[in-house]
Amino acid sequence: MLDLNLDAASNSALYIQLYKKLKNKIQNDLEANTKLPPIRKLATAVGVNPATVVKAYDMLANEEIIYKKVGSGSFVAPTKKIVETKNRHDMLKHGQIKLAESINFASATPSNDLFPVADFKYAINQVLERDQGEAFSYQKSQGFLALRKSIQKYFAQQGINSALKQIQVVSGAQQAIDIISKIMLDYGDQIIVEDPTYFGALQAFNSRKAAIKSIKMEQDGADLEAMEAYLKKNRIKFFFTMQNFQNPTGVNWSQAKQQQLLDLAEKYDFYIIEDDILSDLYYTAEKSSILKEYDKQDRVIYIKSFSKVFMPGLRLAFIILPERLLAQILEAKYATDISSGGLTQRAFDYYLRAGLLDKHIELQRNLFKKRFEIMKAELKKELAEAVEIVFPTKGGLYLWLKFVKNVDSKKLYQQAVAKGLVFSPGYLFSLNSDFGNHLRLSFAAVDSQEIKRGVQILKEIYLNHAHLNQKTEQEYSPLI
Amino acid sequence: MLDLNLDAASNSALYIQLYKKLKNKIQNDLEANTKLPPIRKLATAVGVNPATVVKAYDMLANEEIIYKKVGSGSFVAPTKKIVETKNRHDMLKHGQIKLAESINFASATPSNDLFPVADFKYAINQVLERDQGEAFSYQKSQGFLALRKSIQKYFAQQGINSALKQIQVVSGAQQAIDIISKIMLDYGDQIIVEDPTYFGALQAFNSRKAAIKSIKMEQDGADLEAMEAYLKKNRIKFFFTMQNFQNPTGVNWSQAKQQQLLDLAEKYDFYIIEDDILSDLYYTAEKSSILKEYDKQDRVIYIKSFSKVFMPGLRLAFIILPERLLAQILEAKYATDISSGGLTQRAFDYYLRAGLLDKHIELQRNLFKKRFEIMKAELKKELAEAVEIVFPTKGGLYLWLKFVKNVDSKKLYQQAVAKGLVFSPGYLFSLNSDFGNHLRLSFAAVDSQEIKRGVQILKEIYLNHAHLNQKTEQEYSPLI
Repeated sequence: MLDLNLDAASNSALYIQLYKKLKNKIQNDLEANTKLPPIRKLATAVGVNPATVVKAYDMLANEEIIYKKVGSGSFVAPTKKIVETKNRHDMLKHGQIKLAESINFASATPSNDLFPVADFKYAINQVLERDQGEAFSYQKSQGFLALRKSIQKYFAQQGINSALKQIQVVSGAQQAIDIISKIMLDYGDQIIVEDPTYFGALQAFNSRKAAIKSIKMEQDGADLEAMEAYLKKNRIKFFFTMQNFQNPTGVNWSQAKQQQLLDLAEKYDFYIIEDDILSDLYYTAEKSSILKEYDKQDRVIYIKSFSKVFMPGLRLAFIILPERLLAQILEAKYATDISSGGLTQRAFDYYLRAGLLDKHIELQRNLFKKRFEIMKAELKKELAEAVEIVFPTKGGLYLWLKFVKNVDSKKLYQQAVAKGLVFSPGYLFSLNSDFGNHLRLSFAAVDSQEIKRGVQILKEIYLNHAHLNQKTEQEYSPLI
Repeated sequence: MLDLNLDAASNSALYIQLYKKLKNKIQNDLEANTKLPPIRKLATAVGVNPATVVKAYDMLANEEIIYKKVGSGSFVAPTKKIVETKNRHDMLKHGQIKLAESINFASATPSNDLFPVADFKYAINQVLERDQGEAFSYQKSQGFLALRKSIQKYFAQQGINSALKQIQVVSGAQQAIDIISKIMLDYGDQIIVEDPTYFGALQAFNSRKAAIKSIKMEQDGADLEAMEAYLKKNRIKFFFTMQNFQNPTGVNWSQAKQQQLLDLAEKYDFYIIEDDILSDLYYTAEKSSILKEYDKQDRVIYIKSFSKVFMPGLRLAFIILPERLLAQILEAKYATDISSGGLTQRAFDYYLRAGLLDKHIELQRNLFKKRFEIMKAELKKELAEAVEIVFPTKGGLYLWLKFVKNVDSKKLYQQAVAKGLVFSPGYLFSLNSDFGNHLRLSFAAVDSQEIKRGVQILKEIYLNHAHLNQKTEQEYSPLI
């Protein structure tokens, strides 16, 4: 039996102590596939309730440090899990940086050549002439006042009305998620996310040790019946959602579901975090519908980033907050990085007031719409029998695909990289590494020629992969 | 008796549940100065160990939600505590922004007119010509490579050698503290800070619910005997320290104590976070000694910010990390804000390579030295009988003063504000609102004329305050 002494007088709950001790033991002493003691046996040996052991085992399983086999117990996971985490990181990095000599279907960030550098350079120099040293001093933690005013006006033009005091400037949408997590989440607090969803959000929630429940996406939004069934038994702090061209599915929530969601939030008393990075990129006649517009009860925390339609390296985003959260958010922003960069805030304000943002977004919309059409056409032409587009997207920067036959998208990914193509394997967007035969193809950083070549490469490796897999099965199944 | 049901199967430890329920009860139902149930009585009623109640009461007392009277128990604190928190915020803001028509002894940030705007504007435009759109794309989470190289070289010139991979770029020192807290601190983990210390650090540690112990500052560094006594009984994650011209005391750690501290870290297995914002501002012949230079065992996490000698609005700082923390820090940085602003990193790199930073810092050092001398001379001339400089500082941006007689520095602060003078009352730098008759006077944002006028105003309100206090005592003591 393992030697584990818990301290009843410690600051940590018993199951956390147990989790930490087991984790330590596993990582230092135990070999892969070692069977762990049965729950009741360990509980008796350590002198705790069986429920305490269950919780500790669950935490370890969530982190893929152990795995469970139905009917036979829990086992130490092979350490290759660490390699997988490393791979995940490498892939995330691929999303972040431009790879040399490759076709990048992973990055959902517009390529550099689309940025309005000359206009923004002009804005920077105008601001430096005007503000001199003030542009480099600490800004107020809530943000540069003139920028808060100009973005308030911009939001109003989009149909979202807010009081000036409700607007907080932050250093990008990821910081918004981080700061909101800081004020809302304590150890073990429950939240709901969409399934699949954005990995960076999961990281921030995990960092606060939240208990995360994911609800499957459907064509018109998340499965709200499943959500209500969960809400009846669990009290959550918030639901994290992307209402327009959701990452990675591209789903646009229907107005009916938006209303239902707002009603649920009121009935079960939780907040909704709406992360809006793509609502500007609709390829139909009509603008898509933002949840915050219909938020009568002040339950929606609205995060707006222009990183996907403007310039991500600015690290600038905005939150519209319910009034009762203002003071806490301001304190959290201060404790996080005091304030966002001054020059950037001032130059973006200048750019916004000059009416340049809308024009730039319209250009981007037209450009991305063309790429969207080309990618759909190429997939139909080359891979119609191999993949299906899971949801009928009409905007955004990517398509969410499913292989018709089962494939191992991790392997497929490695083969693609070898041929100079990167994309985002489906499991990157899941809490439990689901969506093994899904992938997200983004057309943000590729031109039409690259789209065509990329789809060709995908076709080649798919055919090759299917072939290889068959062969492998034969080779390793000598009995049949 | 209070009605409090705890849930043994909950995710939270019992004392945390109890703390939350009591807090809720107090804030919603109980009046100020209501006596809370005695520890043993409440423990029996709720069905928990008395130690659980003690912990919950301690947490409430730390947050000033209740107060204790020796021998008579615990009581609900008056809600004016909330007003005090608000005041604290207002004061912090005064530290952050330049007040119109006032003398600012609160701000430790150089005033805007000292920034090298023209040089930096040149650097920005050169970089934009060179890098175009790339300057506005996502940067790598670890930071712009060329900047990491140039800062590595800069550190080496200062005597601090590090491998390139050990250097992480962050958006200011506050973010460094926040990110390090994220990877090192779990609920209830113990740490040690200097007493008094920087309030923003306490905020970040509190946000991770750390158990914070503070150790008194002495003339040559913290009281290491007290620290070792504590370390013998407690396991800490790290010690947070400013080794040069500590905020707010101005103390410079002696080399003897630096060595002792490193030995303690090795003996009791903890990290040291060295927050270096002021080591460049020494007013003696010799440069002050940075702990990281002597860190043979890789136990020091070194944070370097130039916000006090360059331009704080850039939001840029650097961490030199022990190798074993690199991967975690990178993940935490990603989850916090993905990366720091690209243009800023590139322009600072350009500025650094042009050799302009050292020249600028030398100018600043000469300027601040003069202000330092003037402030000391004025205090000696005008207030020698009222205040003493607690530690014999020889660098930095402020003096830590103690009133010889007991005064209420909060009241004094309000009277000063009415006369157009702001400073930092001592309790801002304390975990437990100690240092009531201390204050920090900064000379970063004031010229020599303002220093003279400011000290005059301080003298006036001090004399007036002493006078008022005597009168008040007479009025409210009718029995004597």
